[in-house]
This record gives sequence, structure tokens and C-alpha cells, in this order.
Amino acid sequence: MKILKSITRPTLLLNEDIAKKNIHRMAAKAHAQGKIFRPHFKTHQSAEIGEWYREAGVTAITNSSIEMAQYFANHGWNDITIAFPVNIRQIDEINNLAQSIQLGLLVDSEESVQYLIQHITHPVRVWIEVDTGMHRSGIPCEDYQKFEHLIHLLQQQPDALKLTGLLTHAGHTYQLHGTEQVVKTYTQSVADILALRSRMESATGVQLKVSVGDTPGCSLADDLGKVDEIRPGNFIFYDAQMLSVGACQADQMAVVAACPVVAKYPERNEIVVYGGAVHLSKDTLMDGERRIFGLVSLLQDDGWSLPLPGAYVRGLSQEHGILHITSPHIDSVEIGSLIGVVPAHVCLSIAALREFTTLQGKIIPTLMKTS
Amino acid sequence: MKILKSITRPTLLLNEDIAKKNIHRMAAKAHAQGKIFRPHFKTHQSAEIGEWYREAGVTAITNSSIEMAQYFANHGWNDITIAFPVNIRQIDEINNLAQSIQLGLLVDSEESVQYLIQHITHPVRVWIEVDTGMHRSGIPCEDYQKFEHLIHLLQQQPDALKLTGLLTHAGHTYQLHGTEQVVKTYTQSVADILALRSRMESATGVQLKVSVGDTPGCSLADDLGKVDEIRPGNFIFYDAQMLSVGACQADQMAVVAACPVVAKYPERNEIVVYGGAVHLSKDTLMDGERRIFGLVSLLQDDGWSLPLPGAYVRGLSQEHGILHITSPHIDSVEIGSLIGVVPAHVCLSIAALREFTTLQGKIIPTLMKTS
Repeated sequence: MKILKSITRPTLLLNEDIAKKNIHRMAAKAHAQGKIFRPHFKTHQSAEIGEWYREAGVTAITNSSIEMAQYFANHGWNDITIAFPVNIRQIDEINNLAQSIQLGLLVDSEESVQYLIQHITHPVRVWIEVDTGMHRSGIPCEDYQKFEHLIHLLQQQPDALKLTGLLTHAGHTYQLHGTEQVVKTYTQSVADILALRSRMESATGVQLKVSVGDTPGCSLADDLGKVDEIRPGNFIFYDAQMLSVGACQADQMAVVAACPVVAKYPERNEIVVYGGAVHLSKDTLMDGERRIFGLVSLLQDDGWSLPLPGAYVRGLSQEHGILHITSPHIDSVEIGSLIGVVPAHVCLSIAALREFTTLQGKIIPTLMKTS
Repeated sequence: MKILKSITRPTLLLNEDIAKKNIHRMAAKAHAQGKIFRPHFKTHQSAEIGEWYREAGVTAITNSSIEMAQYFANHGWNDITIAFPVNIRQIDEINNLAQSIQLGLLVDSEESVQYLIQHITHPVRVWIEVDTGMHRSGIPCEDYQKFEHLIHLLQQQPDALKLTGLLTHAGHTYQLHGTEQVVKTYTQSVADILALRSRMESATGVQLKVSVGDTPGCSLADDLGKVDEIRPGNFIFYDAQMLSVGACQADQMAVVAACPVVAKYPERNEIVVYGGAVHLSKDTLMDGERRIFGLVSLLQDDGWSLPLPGAYVRGLSQEHGILHITSPHIDSVEIGSLIGVVPAHVCLSIAALREFTTLQGKIIPTLMKTS
């Protein structure tokens, strides 16, 4: 890559071809099964990359904050679900957005619904969030009374709050390993939310859509199930965690951070790079019993190598990355050269570095670069 | 606090009085013992907060990147050590900086020294980094041959590369608990680097200064030892990790993140806040056997409460913070209210949120906000 010569600081390299293939593969899978494909844009947070999805037929997207939705609305997206429990302190921004786009919100409490009933000035779609096992947010799947109560409350406000359906994120698949485990968890999560839908439709007479969508499940399940919509995000780039789960192949990872090598310690099989927690974030994955912060690749003319066997990011300080690399690979690493770090969690590395550099040297900014 | 009403997103609250007291306490300690106080500015990364140090007599500072040094040089600081192994890919920026300020660089390899010999165009100070047990960067303390070799190399370039001394960061104190452990480790680290200095001064005839400075050691050791300079950084704000180490008292922590409460799950003793890994970073500390992401405080008229006993940040996703809080405290937490999160590692939360809001409502930007 010609661009490597000009890189002096930690830089997120993006292989545009791989990313576009990842988009088209997931879009084709969703469309072949008749699902709405509403990809999560929190992974890339970039208007320019958003256009790649339009080319794959995407018209509806998922975001995780009001700020992100404002940004993508400003870039021509007019059907956005904010897949995060509604933050009622931002009611003014919500009302502003709802005025100009079809906005979807998540609720999982009477308090939030009551607040919206009193304060929403423009119609929004409302999804009730279901906890199918991740235990982050959402009403536990078996808490029928609570679902029924919220549905009844929302039924009384058909103009302002358009009850749309049930939504879950089965993010507990991120901790699994292998197709069998992931597909089993995805399938169970889908079965649970579909059973809940049947029960609630019978009890209330309201028709409910079902939205699901974690990257491991959507990548590995051949049959997405009788859901209406999927919302994966990470799949566009994948990362070390997704590789560990088995959600992708190593050559489907579309982003590495090019980091300058600043020190070398062959006696302890380690090098130190300029590339720390403020560049990569400090997320981790388990590599057997070992907690690691990413994988290591060699940069090449046409991109980067597959992750080096046995090599990993052992630690991250604010600016230091400490990489474990054994012989023979460490022998060829020179101080002043660049090496590739495969992020543990690419979404957070992007949020930290705030822009991409394609293999052709083009800079693609994200929302965070412009705010 | 009047300002709370206007807060709708994760916001770093700064208690200016506590921070200024922390600065003055450390400055007084250093000056009383005749040490150069060269505080690390990577913690706050703010020109305005930098001025508070000037009021405490500080004229020399530490940074961790060229970009940070450029920023502080632009704000009138003319004596800066970059306490990170020199990144020779940034030689042009280094030469530019060295033209306008007294710049100190770190080296720990012949490769870097040879590169500097060939490419430095303006005089810089050079510190040899010593690994006194953290095993991040630096030459192992006992590798006398390597030190002697580098000193001889540098002696031959007295005009461009001004060999200044030996520098270490005993960051392994961050993993300890209690004054006794920390002081023992600090004292050992100081003893080791002082012994190395004696040996090298005898062997080479060169006079060498000694620079040390981790926040736990500098906070807890009554006697800083026969070093010339200390470089702590975190002490201005402290954080959950420093509290866990015992490096500070709970009422000496100067920063919490105010986060909107978006969901509440009393049955599992948890609430969810808008405040995730992109706001707080994803650093952790061990609370006994449990890995946690921060502590929890209640916001009050005059700031915030001491951390709630038994409450902690259980997990962080990209935008979600999952807080464990038991009765009676969880009973009073309302959806739509704000709660305080004490960051695990405040330096990284600041890098993520990029600005402070004082209790009086003043916004103080950091370098990252302006770049």
C-alpha cells in the first residue's frame, strides 16, 4: 500500500471491498427470506459508508442515540429506529426528529410510556423491548402482565404513539463459541419472542411485528426464523471478538488499525506500538483463559495478513499497545515500521479513532469527526 | 446544582475546588522535598486546566504524544517531556516542536537513538527509559550493558541529543491495594533506578537525573526519595481505580459522569443509564473477585455523594451503562433522572467525552474537542 508510507499515527485501515461484500451478503440473506433489513449504523457511524447500504437496497436503519439519528437524518435517511431505551431527557430532540422522519423508539417501562403520552408532539413508532436472555435492557420475556399493560396503555394513543411491535437484541451470543452454540441461542431467542407475540396478539388483538438482530445469530443461522426484521451492525467489518465467536472468517474482517512500532523486547516476546486505549478502546475478549485486547496482523501491499498465530494484544495503556509476538514474526518487526492491530471490538475503535483510511488512501470521516 | 436540569446526555462533571486542592497538595509535597514537579497532562488534556497548575508554580510538564505536546506548546508551555517511547515516524513534527520548545524524548533502543542521531535537526533532551517492574516499555533495570551502550552512543552527540537522565513509570502500583504495598513498590522502584544511576555514573562519567512518577506512589509515599523529578498525572481527579488502590480518599475524586437513567429493573437490582463505553471507555478494576467498570454516586445540590456502598457499574455496551444498585438506593432512582458514575479510569473517560462541565456550569474543552 502506497499510503503506509505517510502513516505516522494510529490509523484505521478499511478494506472497502471486504466491507461491501459483507453488506451484500447480509442484505441478500435478509431479502431472500423476506425480512426487512434494518442494519445498525452504530458500527460505522459514517454517512459515506451509509451510501454503500443504499446500493444494497437498504432504506431503513437502526441507530443507538438521538445524536446519531440526527446525523443520519441530515444525510437523507428517513426511517430510523433508535434501538436504545428512550432517553426522555432528550424529548425536545425527539420531537424535532419525529417531525422530519419516521422515528422508532424503544420502551420497556410504564414511566417512559406515560412520559411520551404527555410530551410527544409528532407521531413516532414504538417498539416494546424484550429481554430474551442478555439481561441488559428490556422486559423479561415471561413477564406477560407487564407487556399486556404497556400494550393497553399504547393502544389508547394510536395517533401519537404507533405501537409497532416487539424488539430484542440477543447480545448474549457475543460470549459464545461456534455455530452450534450461536444458532441454538439465536433460535431460542427467536422462538421466545415469537411465542410472546402470539400470546400478546391473542390477549390484546393488536398486530405486532418482531425485530431481532445480533451479528453472530444473523451471520450463522441459515434460517432467520419467522421474524419481520433483522438489525445486525457489526457484520460490516467484524472483529477479533466475532472471529472468536466464529461469526466470521478471518478474511472477512474489514478493518485493522495500523500502528507505529516504537519499542521491541524480543526477550519477552513483546513489542510496543503507538496505539493505546484512546485509539482502540479497551474492550476485551477471552482467548481461552486469557483476556486479550485484540489480534495482530502484518501489513502487506494489498492490505494485511491473516491474524498471526499465537500473537495478541496483551495490554493497552492510554497510548501504549503491548503486543505479544513470538519468533519468527517478531524478528522481522522493526522499530519505526507499522503493524496491524485487529480490534477486539471494532465499533468502539471506530468511535475512538473517528475516521477510516481506505487502502487507496481516501479518508472517510464518521459522525464523531464532525461533531 | 442548577446545571443538572439542562443535562440531557452523558456529561463529565468537574468539581474545580477538589481538583485545585489535589494539584496544590501534590505541588506542595514535591516542592517541600526539592523535586521538580512535572505533572502529566494526559489526564486532563485541557489548556484551561493547565493554567491551574501554573498557579501552583508548575513550569514543566509531561505529555504522552506529539499531538498533545503541540497543543500545550501552542498554549504557552515551553518545557515538555513526551513520556512515551519516541515514535520516529513523527520525526518532522518532533523537529518542528524542538525548534520552539525544550523538548524531552524517551528512548530505550539503539535503533531509535541511531535514527535520532541521523534525523534530529534541533537539540532535544533525551531520557533513557527504565523498566523497574511494570514490563510495559523501558530497558530492564538490570540490563547494564544496554544502558552503558546507549549512554556511550548519546555521549557522542552532545549537541543534538542532550542526555538528561533515567526515567521510569512504576505503573505496577496501579494493581496494588493499600499504603504498605504501594509504598513498598514505589520505594523499591526508586531504589532500583537510583542504584542504576550510581552504577552508570561511575561507569560512564556522565551525570544523570532521575525522573519517576506514578500517582499511587507519589500520593502515598511520605518520602519521595532521592529522585530529581516526579511526573504523576491522575492525582488531579483520581478515580475508582485509585480509590481501590487506596491512593486517594473518596472525597478527593474530582470527576463523575452524570448519566440519564433510561431503564430500571428492581427485580435484578439494576438500572440502565445512557452512558456506555463510548462515553466512559471500557477500563475496569477488580472489586474483590468481580471485574467492575466504575462506581455509582447520587448527584446532589453541591456535587455528588460518596460512592454508594455495594453499588457498581456491572457492564458497559456502546451506549448502555448497567449499574448494580440495591435497596434502599434503587428505590429513589427514577427514569429520567440523572445519576453519577465514577469512572474506573478517569483519563480514558475524559478522552472519550472530550470536555468537562464544572459544577457552576462552565464548559471546559480538551484537546480532543478542538482537533
